[in-house]
Amino acid sequence: MKIPKSADIEEAAKRISSKIHKTPVLTSQSLNEITGCNLFFKCENFQKVGAFKFRGATNAVMSLDDQSARRGVATHSSGNHAQALALAAVMRGIPATIVMPENAPKVKIEAVQGYGADVIFCKATLEARESTLQEVLDTKGSVFIHPYNNFNVIAGQGTAALELTYQTQDLDFVLAPVGGGGLLSGTAITVKHILPKSKVIACEPVGADDAYKSFHAGEIIPSVNPNTVCDGLLTSLGEMNFEIIKSLVDDVLTADDEKIIYAMKLIWQRMKIVIEPSSAVPLAVILQNKEMFKGKNIGIIISGGNIDPDVKY
Amino acid sequence: MKIPKSADIEEAAKRISSKIHKTPVLTSQSLNEITGCNLFFKCENFQKVGAFKFRGATNAVMSLDDQSARRGVATHSSGNHAQALALAAVMRGIPATIVMPENAPKVKIEAVQGYGADVIFCKATLEARESTLQEVLDTKGSVFIHPYNNFNVIAGQGTAALELTYQTQDLDFVLAPVGGGGLLSGTAITVKHILPKSKVIACEPVGADDAYKSFHAGEIIPSVNPNTVCDGLLTSLGEMNFEIIKSLVDDVLTADDEKIIYAMKLIWQRMKIVIEPSSAVPLAVILQNKEMFKGKNIGIIISGGNIDPDVKY
Repeated sequence: MKIPKSADIEEAAKRISSKIHKTPVLTSQSLNEITGCNLFFKCENFQKVGAFKFRGATNAVMSLDDQSARRGVATHSSGNHAQALALAAVMRGIPATIVMPENAPKVKIEAVQGYGADVIFCKATLEARESTLQEVLDTKGSVFIHPYNNFNVIAGQGTAALELTYQTQDLDFVLAPVGGGGLLSGTAITVKHILPKSKVIACEPVGADDAYKSFHAGEIIPSVNPNTVCDGLLTSLGEMNFEIIKSLVDDVLTADDEKIIYAMKLIWQRMKIVIEPSSAVPLAVILQNKEMFKGKNIGIIISGGNIDPDVKY
Repeated sequence: MKIPKSADIEEAAKRISSKIHKTPVLTSQSLNEITGCNLFFKCENFQKVGAFKFRGATNAVMSLDDQSARRGVATHSSGNHAQALALAAVMRGIPATIVMPENAPKVKIEAVQGYGADVIFCKATLEARESTLQEVLDTKGSVFIHPYNNFNVIAGQGTAALELTYQTQDLDFVLAPVGGGGLLSGTAITVKHILPKSKVIACEPVGADDAYKSFHAGEIIPSVNPNTVCDGLLTSLGEMNFEIIKSLVDDVLTADDEKIIYAMKLIWQRMKIVIEPSSAVPLAVILQNKEMFKGKNIGIIISGGNIDPDVKY
């Protein structure tokens, strides 16, 4: 298995620099006071499509040679990767096909279609998603861009942390949420290369703690019926992601949904930015491990800001 | 009646520059596409205490001579002005007394007390507020800082628009919400001086349209039982504010609560920033007057971001 290195992330950063937003790093005096640390929030909620996913999708699409690109790209996703791949494809002028479960939220389906992608519906099971995608690949010849278990996607996601290291100084910790592990593995590669003394901590909801279990077991233990408000973190770790996480991540810490929602609302109220539940897991982890983080400089990747304003948390 | 001039706002800007945040001006490609104009959002939701009110309160407190300052300041408010005056006072090291209705939200009372201000409770009527405040002024000798009908408060609020004119170019319109008129009158003074060709439009909820009625009648017509989701815009115009508005504001346009909530959620979703309902009135006005604003460069003052995350809109 070929795994991305720090140089691949630097290459990715050059490749996508004209396509993505260089997002700001925000600080909050009041959250520093509440937590007792110095927090640096890398705000990927301000990224295109509202999430870091656009970095990985763009790097994957831009890495294709012309011949492959002409075949178009495809994936299955009901989340941020679907929109990210759809927009990345339209920006390169190639077709995208997105397999979505028939019960996906209408607003997400319309967003993907709005970027000009072809949406194919399937039943809401992993099996149906995979078989429907396989049909697309067989009939259209599209290139499959996996949401996280993909070399170029991981390299692209790592560019958020790469920017963070340039925008800050002397981070003692970098915290990122973990679902499939694309953001976390890319973050770990770049942070461990540029700031070798900095610790990388994965942050996971208790209700979807496959990374926690896998990290401690030393082998992938898939999620069974994950249940958490963090809709972006329901997936199980990818193989390539786990290889990287095993060797580079210092620890996996968990928080329950109640604390995650509390942390999310705290960020809404104190920082006046909209973040999705998945992005609040690192702050929830800090709030329940205050001694561990006391007085430290901590980078936090805010993964995205795509919430439904009519959902009550 | 002595009314602030553009030079007073420039003076205020110098006076408060080291105390306030110079807030960013944000743009949104997707909101530009939806509205058909070029929108420039002056984000006072990122101001200290989460609202433009901190500018006026700080200017008023910093304008006091040492002898007056030692007497402390006082006001009646259950909203953003209460917190703003409390923080401005603590930053100058003088006492603040805030008269608040006994039914004020606990979170707001605690915030004011958190800044070290003395909170005095009264019944939730305008009469009780005014008589309780008068007692404070009589017994403590504090200087009354009115939330909007005050020379230095108006001059301070105008500094947001002053910054906006430096941060942008060639604005055809500047839109601000109107409640008591502090923000609007300060905005009009500075915009009409620096960008004389630019039109200043007041934006008001239909359920609290005293500025609309007063503007067209040529005299103050106070609000009677105002009813709107915009809790920051329930007050009636101040006299000094109305004098300025009459001579400098080009028009007052209204929007109903349904459209204001729609516009607020649109900003949350597309810009990933938290704004309060009052701040969404200008976008609501633009959305229902698209022809008027088509293709124009429009500055919008986002007045604040103080919402209760548990309230369902």
